[in-house]
Amino acid sequence: MEQTVRQAAELAKQASVDLGTTTGEQRNAALFAMAKALREQTPAIIAANDADMAAAREKGTSAPLLDRLMLDEGRIAGIASALEDLAALPDPLGVIQQERTLDSGVSLQRVSVPMGVVAMVYEARPNVTADAAGICIKTGNACILRGGSLAINSCLAIADVLHDAAVSAGMPKNCIIPVRTTDRSATDDLLKMRGLVDLLIPRGGAGLIQHCIANATVPVIETGVGNCHVYVHAPADIEMARRIIMNAKTQRPGVCNAIESLLVDREFANDLLTAVLPDLAGAGVVIHGDEAAQAAGAAVGVDVIPATEEDWGTEYLDLEISVKAVEGPEEAIAHINRYGTNHSECIVTQDEAAAERFLAQVDASSVYWNASTRFTDGGEFGLGAEIGISTQKLHARGPFALEALCSYKYLLRGTGQVRG
Amino acid sequence: MEQTVRQAAELAKQASVDLGTTTGEQRNAALFAMAKALREQTPAIIAANDADMAAAREKGTSAPLLDRLMLDEGRIAGIASALEDLAALPDPLGVIQQERTLDSGVSLQRVSVPMGVVAMVYEARPNVTADAAGICIKTGNACILRGGSLAINSCLAIADVLHDAAVSAGMPKNCIIPVRTTDRSATDDLLKMRGLVDLLIPRGGAGLIQHCIANATVPVIETGVGNCHVYVHAPADIEMARRIIMNAKTQRPGVCNAIESLLVDREFANDLLTAVLPDLAGAGVVIHGDEAAQAAGAAVGVDVIPATEEDWGTEYLDLEISVKAVEGPEEAIAHINRYGTNHSECIVTQDEAAAERFLAQVDASSVYWNASTRFTDGGEFGLGAEIGISTQKLHARGPFALEALCSYKYLLRGTGQVRG
Repeated sequence: MEQTVRQAAELAKQASVDLGTTTGEQRNAALFAMAKALREQTPAIIAANDADMAAAREKGTSAPLLDRLMLDEGRIAGIASALEDLAALPDPLGVIQQERTLDSGVSLQRVSVPMGVVAMVYEARPNVTADAAGICIKTGNACILRGGSLAINSCLAIADVLHDAAVSAGMPKNCIIPVRTTDRSATDDLLKMRGLVDLLIPRGGAGLIQHCIANATVPVIETGVGNCHVYVHAPADIEMARRIIMNAKTQRPGVCNAIESLLVDREFANDLLTAVLPDLAGAGVVIHGDEAAQAAGAAVGVDVIPATEEDWGTEYLDLEISVKAVEGPEEAIAHINRYGTNHSECIVTQDEAAAERFLAQVDASSVYWNASTRFTDGGEFGLGAEIGISTQKLHARGPFALEALCSYKYLLRGTGQVRG
Repeated sequence: MEQTVRQAAELAKQASVDLGTTTGEQRNAALFAMAKALREQTPAIIAANDADMAAAREKGTSAPLLDRLMLDEGRIAGIASALEDLAALPDPLGVIQQERTLDSGVSLQRVSVPMGVVAMVYEARPNVTADAAGICIKTGNACILRGGSLAINSCLAIADVLHDAAVSAGMPKNCIIPVRTTDRSATDDLLKMRGLVDLLIPRGGAGLIQHCIANATVPVIETGVGNCHVYVHAPADIEMARRIIMNAKTQRPGVCNAIESLLVDREFANDLLTAVLPDLAGAGVVIHGDEAAQAAGAAVGVDVIPATEEDWGTEYLDLEISVKAVEGPEEAIAHINRYGTNHSECIVTQDEAAAERFLAQVDASSVYWNASTRFTDGGEFGLGAEIGISTQKLHARGPFALEALCSYKYLLRGTGQVRG
């Protein structure tokens, strides 16, 4: 296995050298060819997906997971359109970021360049195959795509269609390489391909991400785990707070920018919670709370399960929330910095000084004042695409896309200068 | 030990919250106070250094290493001045990098912020203690400084002087934390402080750097290993080539931006090498070469040791070089991308098209046309400082300083917006 992944990485590295000198026009033409091929090969891709779906059903896979796995004509058309949307974005390569003449007379330019080889490790979402391949072609990177075993047939079918279309449109052979085995050791081999893999991005559950971080020797961008909070600080507009809390918790509870925890000033807890807890309970949200939350629940006839220490650190990803009273901004900020995952955090208040302190001191990719955490998204932020949401601070933070798949290099042109 | 390093990391994390909201003026005042305290405490620092020097001499430490370890009044004054130079640089924090209004009306800003906690792992260079502490204060980061055992007394003395001066000038307690043990497990504990250490930078030999990369779960910037090449492609000015090769190899052979290998077009090899090999031999450089180099050496009476496969991948860091003939740019680029360490690479030629191809396709932080690789340096590149030279492509590449110790966050201010 080691050898197979190493061979794939070596082929990708070779491809990356030629990819790095393609023009933006050539890469956009490849994206259009890839979109066209996806549409044309729809029946073959659906047939491959049918095989995955049948195997998944046999294994008793849950309905939401089956839904993520499923491809139909409409979804494939959507994936193809997303490739064309990428083509419309400005070329991220060859941008002169800095330019100066050194004291010696050597001219220096700092220019954006591809990363080289990007490896994507993901779970049962066949669309990630196309999203990742597209964004890598746009940024001149060769990619190695390691999809989950549940989606293996769909991923291979999509990757092969995209590779062949890209090559026909002038991209180098092996610019897109799917890992053809479902053997788990292939992921571990990929994590160690230092010198061949320039960047690895895991996308999936916390288990996959932690495994990659703990074992990788190649550079990794940590993505996605979101233990997000709304903190309500008096004075606050209770109707605004209700709206934001309900949206952030219930609009799509399974995503990383949904909130898992509600903090409120102790003095304001009864006012807020007697209004909000019935909303949450009415939407089917299971509530874990401290004593203040339990008291407010009791006052309005809402069940509140006593929260444990574990609840503060739990990303439920479901209709479930923890609720806690705090003494004020200092305790709220400390709690969030301790239990949060540096993803998206919100304060609801009319107190500008407290809001600005929260914005400054909460250590998260995206910090909100009076708006729902659900906006943390590449599309919403105007990036034009998204490959993940980074919860680390190195290189990329928050939603990331084209810019994060580029590095830079210094080009120095002289006339024989040496250092004195 | 685990507990001690964890405690240090937790204290640093706490300090980082307050550091992140200091003003540039406050941080600059701290840098001046640190410089002043270093000058005032010079005798105590020299006394600590004397203890390190005595222990090092007893161990039979080599003269160059003793020289790196040694502090005197002049060197301490130089370290102090460097802190004042940092104060003169623009504030890297709070820079609004992007600003837009989302479709929902939420205002978005992307603002530069500190990394949080930066850990520095280095060897027997006491000056790194002050350089790292200074650059971290400038960028609002708390730092954990893990110096080598040979310099432990000097490092602790410097770190304590700097910490106390910074705190007196208004920085939070524990903004600078030296690791007080020489136990090796402290480094390994530091490498695993995910969630507390936001960035780890190893500086030292290849062994230290590889150990950090292989074992870290915190984000790391790989620094420093430089297997650098000069490639001479005909037509080339032989005098310019001689000057660049001699400068890049012999001016300071122990540093990472010195070259280790010379490549030359086969058809041009005899012309170039019969001129250059006597220069190199005259400067005491040991030459390892392929058959073409051996033939040229024989023609001018210079000893050329037959090169082995191992030579192409060796960073000698000494007066030693490998020499090889290649068929042309394609082979030269492939050789460099295979054996190089992505540091600094140079082509000497009058052929502009070949030079531009080399600049585009060689995968290194700094690629030169007709200038010495010795210019790869934060000061030379105009960064105003340098904390290391990155040989990876994530986040920072080439010489890096203030910018690399900053991250960014998204600040979103709304009026109650929720996602539809």
